[in-house]
Amino acid sequence: MKIGLCGFGVVGRGVYEIIQKRHDMQVTKVLCLEDIQLPDAQAVKDFNDILNDPEIDTVVEAMGGLHPSFEFASAALKAGKNLVTSNKALVCTFYDELVPLAARMGVKLRCTAAVGGGIGWLSELERSRRVQKIQQVGGIMNGTCNYILDNMTRKGSDYMETLRQAQKLGYAEANPATDVEGIDTWHKVILSSNIAFGISLEKESVPVAGISRITAADVENFRAHGRVCKLISTGKRTEQGFSAYVQPTLVDEGTPEAAVPLNYNLITFVGETSDRMSFFGQGAGRYPTAYNVVQDLVDVLSGKGFYAPYGAPQQADNSETLRYYVRGSWAGEVTEHWGDAVITAPVAVSDIHAWLKENPEAFLAAIAE
Amino acid sequence: MKIGLCGFGVVGRGVYEIIQKRHDMQVTKVLCLEDIQLPDAQAVKDFNDILNDPEIDTVVEAMGGLHPSFEFASAALKAGKNLVTSNKALVCTFYDELVPLAARMGVKLRCTAAVGGGIGWLSELERSRRVQKIQQVGGIMNGTCNYILDNMTRKGSDYMETLRQAQKLGYAEANPATDVEGIDTWHKVILSSNIAFGISLEKESVPVAGISRITAADVENFRAHGRVCKLISTGKRTEQGFSAYVQPTLVDEGTPEAAVPLNYNLITFVGETSDRMSFFGQGAGRYPTAYNVVQDLVDVLSGKGFYAPYGAPQQADNSETLRYYVRGSWAGEVTEHWGDAVITAPVAVSDIHAWLKENPEAFLAAIAE
Repeated sequence: MKIGLCGFGVVGRGVYEIIQKRHDMQVTKVLCLEDIQLPDAQAVKDFNDILNDPEIDTVVEAMGGLHPSFEFASAALKAGKNLVTSNKALVCTFYDELVPLAARMGVKLRCTAAVGGGIGWLSELERSRRVQKIQQVGGIMNGTCNYILDNMTRKGSDYMETLRQAQKLGYAEANPATDVEGIDTWHKVILSSNIAFGISLEKESVPVAGISRITAADVENFRAHGRVCKLISTGKRTEQGFSAYVQPTLVDEGTPEAAVPLNYNLITFVGETSDRMSFFGQGAGRYPTAYNVVQDLVDVLSGKGFYAPYGAPQQADNSETLRYYVRGSWAGEVTEHWGDAVITAPVAVSDIHAWLKENPEAFLAAIAE
Repeated sequence: MKIGLCGFGVVGRGVYEIIQKRHDMQVTKVLCLEDIQLPDAQAVKDFNDILNDPEIDTVVEAMGGLHPSFEFASAALKAGKNLVTSNKALVCTFYDELVPLAARMGVKLRCTAAVGGGIGWLSELERSRRVQKIQQVGGIMNGTCNYILDNMTRKGSDYMETLRQAQKLGYAEANPATDVEGIDTWHKVILSSNIAFGISLEKESVPVAGISRITAADVENFRAHGRVCKLISTGKRTEQGFSAYVQPTLVDEGTPEAAVPLNYNLITFVGETSDRMSFFGQGAGRYPTAYNVVQDLVDVLSGKGFYAPYGAPQQADNSETLRYYVRGSWAGEVTEHWGDAVITAPVAVSDIHAWLKENPEAFLAAIAE
């Protein structure tokens, strides 16, 4: 297998290093805008040098972002090359383009590192689908949010102070919005649901609430009621079809979710025969992520393509009702007061997220039953 | 695929039910000593009816125990039939016979459900080995012990009372020795180590200590020091080769291990690039276990055999030193007193297990660092 590697940052360099020790594959060209010298691969600055190289059968996209990643990815697939990527934004956003395109071209598309970094999550969904119907997917999918929430819970510190410390330690980016507003988790649960259920979720039907409005006083309220706040994603089969959402969620102290420390992930599926299966590990980082990119390359070599057949677009139905902790101008029915926040009566997930859009200064967290 | 199913108890019946819904495989004969009537399979009482049926290409062993399971399993392999089993005692005890025999006969042997029930653990070790060296395996591998320890921790109840309740609820067997003395975990960590490292551990070099001597006072001591007791297995690479052992272990409150509730398992491997990866799920039960048996059958259909090449016998080297909580006539160096128990100075794992053999009334638990 001859590989054209696009991007030589955190993940790309890790992929290159792991492949250097292997005999079944070789990185022959690396697309990198900086000047680099590699002993066994040619550094190029124009993607066409990879695209038009007939020796290269597989492209690894490790640049991140949507553009030009999407243009490079589709050009590679159209040119009959396999594509492996760790870019969840790319595969989630252009699911309806990339997955059918790869199938039409008869080439392989894989993206295991896109959800859970080093965790063999999407590959386990693929395995699980062979034997059972998957009922539910989701969990703690973003290490930055978990790092912030875990530190606020353990130290009682406030949000901004914790975020700044996470940035200093490299657990949060300079612009943390994609992580703390839940967008990264949203990409991951949509992609996981698409694969688990064989559908293509309409993205705008999947609501997301992030953690950036949480305060030390909120966390103290949770602690006083034996609860821990985590950013949790959910995708599941319902009687009506499928529901999917991302929101801060108050889990009981003593549950596996509550115990997830630092920047770890805990991702779960529930299958009709296997019951609950959870995966705990490093959801990001150079080597864990690069590890799963190389796993995908091994799978491509063995003939494996995408994890599930492409399925028809589906609107998420979030009419399920949950109780919420709300700090803000909530005018609906209230059952309890926790400090200056309230616990709502059961309210439809879609309704409270619509309310949050109108009240962006509010903070909410679902109460896990 | 035509399957001869040996055993129609908890697991066997679950396997039969799942396969009934599939088109790629069929149970044609079931070995069962009771009189049963099945709509689509012949019930037989003599294993030779399966062995000598040229249509049957694959045998599922779901009887448990060592004999006649071993005789049936080896006869099936020698007759050129694939073998799938969930029997950890069988595969661990006769590793040096069954694994080379399957390779020699060119047939497939799989046993994913043998460790972790429904967790895709051995199959993930197999996947992991393709890309990295695995450094360590282990964790909470026995649901009965975890159920007892979790209940003692949460309720402060004593061992016998908790065991009896577990028996009443079906979480412990009438004769619980295999579980509570750690033998089941011992089989599982030896099998996991053999596959992860490509070796064959000398079983008598792997020491095991169980939980049957633990008291409510011990648990209270642990609680007072922010610790939770779990039965934890370890298999790892060392500078000298490999170490492996099973022992009660005091983990910190707030760790993922401490949060494992009821009869769940939490099994972990550490890889050189993936870092720590843990699996949380139902380690037993009809459908989770049967689920992984059927996964193995799908893998056999796709041409997959055993998880790792058979490796040479290896003596475990347990010269690593740990501190232990000991309640008993410990005459070695002591660093602390917890109630009427002591905390030892660091002592070699092999030495303290040798001491425990001479002092079987004692209870010990390693202190996780």
